[in-house]
Amino acid sequence: MSASPTLSLEQIQKFFDASPYIATLGLRAVSQDIEAGVLVVQVPWQPHFERGAGTRQWHGGPLAAIIDTVGDFALAMQLGRGLPTINFRVDYLRPAIATDLKVTASVRRNGRSVGVADVDVADGEGRLVAVGRATYATLAG
Amino acid sequence: MSASPTLSLEQIQKFFDASPYIATLGLRAVSQDIEAGVLVVQVPWQPHFERGAGTRQWHGGPLAAIIDTVGDFALAMQLGRGLPTINFRVDYLRPAIATDLKVTASVRRNGRSVGVADVDVADGEGRLVAVGRATYATLAG
Amino acid sequence: MSASPTLSLEQIQKFFDASPYIATLGLRAVSQDIEAGVLVVQVPWQPHFERGAGTRQWHGGPLAAIIDTVGDFALAMQLGRGLPTINFRVDYLRPAIATDLKVTASVRRNGRSVGVADVDVADGEGRLVAVGRATYATLAG
Amino acid sequence: MSASPTLSLEQIQKFFDASPYIATLGLRAVSQDIEAGVLVVQVPWQPHFERGAGTRQWHGGPLAAIIDTVGDFALAMQLGRGLPTINFRVDYLRPAIATDLKVTASVRRNGRSVGVADVDVADGEGRLVAVGRATYATLAG
Repeated sequence: MSASPTLSLEQIQKFFDASPYIATLGLRAVSQDIEAGVLVVQVPWQPHFERGAGTRQWHGGPLAAIIDTVGDFALAMQLGRGLPTINFRVDYLRPAIATDLKVTASVRRNGRSVGVADVDVADGEGRLVAVGRATYATLAG
Repeated sequence: MSASPTLSLEQIQKFFDASPYIATLGLRAVSQDIEAGVLVVQVPWQPHFERGAGTRQWHGGPLAAIIDTVGDFALAMQLGRGLPTINFRVDYLRPAIATDLKVTASVRRNGRSVGVADVDVADGEGRLVAVGRATYATLAG
Repeated sequence: MSASPTLSLEQIQKFFDASPYIATLGLRAVSQDIEAGVLVVQVPWQPHFERGAGTRQWHGGPLAAIIDTVGDFALAMQLGRGLPTINFRVDYLRPAIATDLKVTASVRRNGRSVGVADVDVADGEGRLVAVGRATYATLAG
Repeated sequence: MSASPTLSLEQIQKFFDASPYIATLGLRAVSQDIEAGVLVVQVPWQPHFERGAGTRQWHGGPLAAIIDTVGDFALAMQLGRGLPTINFRVDYLRPAIATDLKVTASVRRNGRSVGVADVDVADGEGRLVAVGRATYATLAG
């Protein structure tokens, strides 16, 4: 047993797929730097994310849910367990139209009781479409 | 034509049902006070909202999406049109387990270029499970 | 000794006056409902709060500092001790011009490890000029 | 006259010193990259920032005010004029004790009606003590 268990990409993907809700988002964990606290996730466009019928625009709701989830796992992968979200903020910067998303979460602080992660969401052209900042409860049990 | 068009509950419900994404949330607009800026929406529990398989706990993602959407329509019903979200914050207060939700959005400010709404989310026992605060762009076109 | 110590208005005022920084804000604790978690504070206008020379407009900085502090004491008065701020958000709704402020903080949740308070800031005419929402660490020691 | 006026470090410093409130914070504009939207400000420790008498710890209030102000000028320096804050969030990561601060603001989006800036606040050892994220109204007059 390790003194500091961590989560591999495969373990993160299993968490994603095992959650009935997260499974609807279609997240794919693609790269990680555990020590730096950086986790990258790809999210393919799906029609059930569409804001207005025929617009092919991402609704802000799934973007928020993705930010919450990927920020959480940036900390979780360092701690080896999932964490409850305390709160988060999302800012929408540009419409995202029928595009896959690249989501990059970065740990800003992994403290004794609170962790903070920043999450950047970019479209297929690399343009920032939304940014998130979230706090999670890091206390065990 | 009215100088200040508004949205009735029926019109709000049509917006909810016409959006492919919002339709997945199953929102039911149940009461409104347009002048006071208060909109109440019921949200029945659905299994695809489940956080961990078998937990019957609401994942925070759909809660955030519901907050964003209901806050938006509290302002939209006063202005007669939908509004882009600038940003929002959600705080999670208690787990919500296999319960319908009562969501109450209140306009705090409906200004020339920015509107602010607060959103309280309660479970079937009336306990607060999450609170949101969101800003929307109110400028026409 | 009480099993659940609380802070009276006089004790809150002593905390305000004993902090070198808070003393510069000139807060006056005027009413409280400890059980409901509501604390009301008056803040007289002072020239060193002025945004642009000659404008007599409150700068947003002291408004934010006031929100953080009054929200903190709404929880602190229930717990009998000060609390570290985890994070907070402030939304500015209207300019406040050369006016005293009435600040009302309300506890939304006083949980085992995190507390949440809402703070409304009104000018002398009772118009809302800013709203805040803050989380504090409630764990002892 | 330039089609896109900007603010030099000297002009930013003049704004800082001309505001009665900002002058109390003692900000020193030290470097800028206007195109990248990065502004760096140093803030010397002053006793009137002290949280508890004798602690020499920065109170969170002036940290929030500094974040609001420096984020604002990161956008202002690109637009050649000051901007009203819509809202901001501050997360406190570590106590800052009797230390000068290095504040780095970065523009994340400078849009037609809204701008977003991130602000990192580090102590004299380079440790992050607080982070901010703020939105400003970028529409002219």
